[in-house]
Amino acid sequence: MSDTVSLMHGLYFEDLEVGQSACFGKTITDAEIAAFAGVSGDTNPVHLHDEFAASTPFKTRIAHGMLGASYISTLIGTRLPGPGCIYVSQNLRFKAPVRVGDTLTAFVTIEELIPEKKFIKMKTQCLVGDKVVIDGEATIMVPTKG
Amino acid sequence: MSDTVSLMHGLYFEDLEVGQSACFGKTITDAEIAAFAGVSGDTNPVHLHDEFAASTPFKTRIAHGMLGASYISTLIGTRLPGPGCIYVSQNLRFKAPVRVGDTLTAFVTIEELIPEKKFIKMKTQCLVGDKVVIDGEATIMVPTKG
Amino acid sequence: MSDTVSLMHGLYFEDLEVGQSACFGKTITDAEIAAFAGVSGDTNPVHLHDEFAASTPFKTRIAHGMLGASYISTLIGTRLPGPGCIYVSQNLRFKAPVRVGDTLTAFVTIEELIPEKKFIKMKTQCLVGDKVVIDGEATIMVPTKG
Amino acid sequence: MSDTVSLMHGLYFEDLEVGQSACFGKTITDAEIAAFAGVSGDTNPVHLHDEFAASTPFKTRIAHGMLGASYISTLIGTRLPGPGCIYVSQNLRFKAPVRVGDTLTAFVTIEELIPEKKFIKMKTQCLVGDKVVIDGEATIMVPTKG
Repeated sequence: MSDTVSLMHGLYFEDLEVGQSACFGKTITDAEIAAFAGVSGDTNPVHLHDEFAASTPFKTRIAHGMLGASYISTLIGTRLPGPGCIYVSQNLRFKAPVRVGDTLTAFVTIEELIPEKKFIKMKTQCLVGDKVVIDGEATIMVPTKG
Repeated sequence: MSDTVSLMHGLYFEDLEVGQSACFGKTITDAEIAAFAGVSGDTNPVHLHDEFAASTPFKTRIAHGMLGASYISTLIGTRLPGPGCIYVSQNLRFKAPVRVGDTLTAFVTIEELIPEKKFIKMKTQCLVGDKVVIDGEATIMVPTKG
Repeated sequence: MSDTVSLMHGLYFEDLEVGQSACFGKTITDAEIAAFAGVSGDTNPVHLHDEFAASTPFKTRIAHGMLGASYISTLIGTRLPGPGCIYVSQNLRFKAPVRVGDTLTAFVTIEELIPEKKFIKMKTQCLVGDKVVIDGEATIMVPTKG
Repeated sequence: MSDTVSLMHGLYFEDLEVGQSACFGKTITDAEIAAFAGVSGDTNPVHLHDEFAASTPFKTRIAHGMLGASYISTLIGTRLPGPGCIYVSQNLRFKAPVRVGDTLTAFVTIEELIPEKKFIKMKTQCLVGDKVVIDGEATIMVPTKG
């Protein structure tokens, strides 16, 4: 393995234990929402159009749920366990809206190691303050050092 | 409801039936991958760095799994059922990689109506050609006309 | 025609009649203006530079006129008549400025069907509240089912 | 007028004469098309989806017509006559498709001065090589030095 690849590689299965945790997030601005609408193509007016949003139960424009979900993916792919792992599955439950100005933070925590498959199971949540806005679980395959 | 809001609104619960389907997708270019890395912060080198990607089982750079997931959200929020619905949950199983040049198409199909909760359950899949690369299910709350 | 192509295709000439209408829009944020400046290269300081804008009759920064025009194109290409149609011509008259915080909504309405050419003529307007900020007409060629 | 404003200001009505011309353009890449789809919301699959595009008369994905139109606006707002002018109207006739790899260049030429209104009329064209892909005319109001 080249030095570059080895320096970039994330954690290996042997490095992991239950309870390890990491977080990543951003303050949600109009720029985040506009950029996510652009890359996804999701121009739902609840995200982009004040007048439409005012007619919904949310009353104001809200961020895309998948924007929060993308921060979970960011954590898994760059921090815990990081580059080299393979995303197997993700469950997402959208619990509450996220508005412009909210600071959205994703947390992942290792809940189970499954050595025979090299899988880990993680609790994955996005919070605004103390409120869980997205709840879920991820399954990840993690390479071994051998 | 203003004319604008009513023209923008998607389908209502009464408009829906099992088997209705819609699709949305894009040909995956470097521009899509770079933009998704930017908005999500997911700079995992398997998406962005040829040398690192060559060291993985995928051999080439691959698209973010959440990019495909975002197209499912786009479909639900803009087409079926469209603006006005509320995303309750989404399960995602990442089955195969998506590479630059692949045309990635998301499909959603209504599988069940739950009138007492105004919920619908949808099968949600992303395909490249005939191959399912993301499999999953969504639960959506849909407003009624009343 | 593949299932994918047929699910993606918009309306056909036979589906259209005079008076059909659709709308699309966004609340104009700094993010929209910055993104449009980036993709177009239109760095006119009336859009981007507070001090310059204060010296103009508009007094504040304003959105690019072509940003509103692009929403007309979005409507035609994605909603009415949607994918499969061909944009023949567009006239635009810029009537009033659009500022950050304004909600800009584009409306298109079919005004004439020209069966011998498979053309439709549409009234195309952008509004902020009740005020027409862009007025114009589009000519579109629409495929037939045959 | 501050130095900043005066240095940024474009040409005045007194500076202009019939026949003056300017050009601006870009080579069209996937990045340009993806970015324009993002900012406009125009996700028409003829721009983004190889399989759908192959089913159209164009056979390949094409750029948004309004992307070329935006380059005309860029020229008017930044070069000829430049900052300080007011866009009154624009007619656009889309004559031919623009594909990835094409170099798209917009040209504007002053055709008429209307001193009583401080208006100029310009021929506005976008070319790929020698082929006119967008033809049209613009009317601009230009401030006087007085």
